[in-house]
Amino acid sequence: MTGIDLDLLRKGNRRTLAKAITLAESKLDSHRSQAQKILEQILPDTGNSIRIGVTGIPGVGKSTFIESFGLHLIAQGKKVAVLAVDPSSPIAGGSILADKTRMEELSRNNNAFIRPSPSGGALGGVAQKTRETMLLCEAAGYDVVLIETVGVGQSEFEVAGMVDFFMVLMLPNAGDELQGLKKGIVELADALVINKADGESLNLAEQTRLHYQNALQLLRHATYWTPKVMTCSARENLAIDDVWQMICDFRSAATEHDDLNSFHAKRAQQNTAWMHHLLHEMLELELKQNPAVHNEIPLLEQQVVAGTITPFTAAKKLMDML
Amino acid sequence: MTGIDLDLLRKGNRRTLAKAITLAESKLDSHRSQAQKILEQILPDTGNSIRIGVTGIPGVGKSTFIESFGLHLIAQGKKVAVLAVDPSSPIAGGSILADKTRMEELSRNNNAFIRPSPSGGALGGVAQKTRETMLLCEAAGYDVVLIETVGVGQSEFEVAGMVDFFMVLMLPNAGDELQGLKKGIVELADALVINKADGESLNLAEQTRLHYQNALQLLRHATYWTPKVMTCSARENLAIDDVWQMICDFRSAATEHDDLNSFHAKRAQQNTAWMHHLLHEMLELELKQNPAVHNEIPLLEQQVVAGTITPFTAAKKLMDML
Repeated sequence: MTGIDLDLLRKGNRRTLAKAITLAESKLDSHRSQAQKILEQILPDTGNSIRIGVTGIPGVGKSTFIESFGLHLIAQGKKVAVLAVDPSSPIAGGSILADKTRMEELSRNNNAFIRPSPSGGALGGVAQKTRETMLLCEAAGYDVVLIETVGVGQSEFEVAGMVDFFMVLMLPNAGDELQGLKKGIVELADALVINKADGESLNLAEQTRLHYQNALQLLRHATYWTPKVMTCSARENLAIDDVWQMICDFRSAATEHDDLNSFHAKRAQQNTAWMHHLLHEMLELELKQNPAVHNEIPLLEQQVVAGTITPFTAAKKLMDML
Repeated sequence: MTGIDLDLLRKGNRRTLAKAITLAESKLDSHRSQAQKILEQILPDTGNSIRIGVTGIPGVGKSTFIESFGLHLIAQGKKVAVLAVDPSSPIAGGSILADKTRMEELSRNNNAFIRPSPSGGALGGVAQKTRETMLLCEAAGYDVVLIETVGVGQSEFEVAGMVDFFMVLMLPNAGDELQGLKKGIVELADALVINKADGESLNLAEQTRLHYQNALQLLRHATYWTPKVMTCSARENLAIDDVWQMICDFRSAATEHDDLNSFHAKRAQQNTAWMHHLLHEMLELELKQNPAVHNEIPLLEQQVVAGTITPFTAAKKLMDML
């Protein structure tokens, strides 16, 4: 008994969906194992959305973009879920992502479901909870899942590992905001979207687009998808439809493409990689629950840093304690 | 008793060094544990070289570059070790890297020590053996350790994790060879060096340099070191001294710099990361030595791919078997 009516969930009942997510995010083991049972049962109903990662530093206009983009999708007949991965969000709310007050119109729409970042914890961390929430939203019939991050930490790499399409929002200033973006993120992107391309910034936005276009052409491989660089204005609702069209083009290309990068192969690879990641976390947790090992790790790290012991010997000592 | 005279090793005796490396590379546990004892004893004598990774696709002129660069260093009074990380090298020789016949003059020089890639195997794989060989070479008084890879696989990331300076050799053709380089490698580089900048290729090489310079400026963070883009000709011995000067500049900047990216902080971080990597490998090995688990992993992977089980449940099932 999980107390969750799966048929209601599959019909898209918002209260039921919210309750299921709350179980998955709970700190209580009993709640989380209930959530696992639910996930096992709804697994055949998942996977039918397109999963889109959206990142960018604060100030780039993520909330405005997601509001505008989400409303556009809903106007096309889609149901849209917005989730956040924000490792910095404190335990009691306060997440700066997926903030309903900043997506006013979207949050009031019946075809949108907005869920702020869960608060850390448990195996797999926020990424695991976000994956579970994504599956629950898919079972509830959401066609598009947007996963939002702030672009300054490790979580972008985690999100790129759970979505079909990864998009970085930029400002029209030709590179300055890269100072804030974590290294390697631009290379992860399937598209760079320069927001705030309106009014007096139009020219600058176009220059910025050309710059990034050149940079990506130089640094990228040829595959079936060359990362796109686009401009849009979420505030003025300009070219938002082009962004969606691009993602549809990507999905067509990726679905037709028959290799390790294809749409389904990528998801399969993401899932097995995540299984191994969780296995590592579980093993490490076991290890750290051994008090002797737990105390020894920082001491051995110090010796490795001081150069009085090799990393190999240090690792071996830890293993021998088991 | 390891049969290795450590004083001779410290004096740079080549036969002793070669014997110690052979112990470390051995497939016999007893040999490898002897090697570990040696490493523990020589650890205070290590760390005094500058460790340089050199990568680039076949045809870029790695052997010619290393020959020319190595001889330049020796002319400056340095002792140079050249190691290779080539995961594709078959068990019985045949490595295409650190090939002495392709570095004829260097390989005959008393101040150079060239060692082809070890053949796979054991914990930590080729990367672990290369780390051990690097330490042995440092104890034997080598001032510069060059670690060579082919730029097409995972090993570049491993090498970037064990060197102070990571350099990617390029051809003067403005981006075409990136088709062969693994994604993300250019972003790892502390320098791109465009080789074969001679004769009719001089103009093209300069164009290529400007292109990459622009691309890196757009995609890089500001730190104490902005990755450099240079041209040289190993065959004509042009600007090889500039490459060395650049690395000396890097070392000065990195040594003066007092943060997480500084010279010693980076090495400390590399070593603790490697300790954790080895610990993971050891745990996974333990896991796989459990025959039930070993058989179950591919089955669970299939179910994860088929979408009949979540990655979390799969990982948990494996853990429950222990």
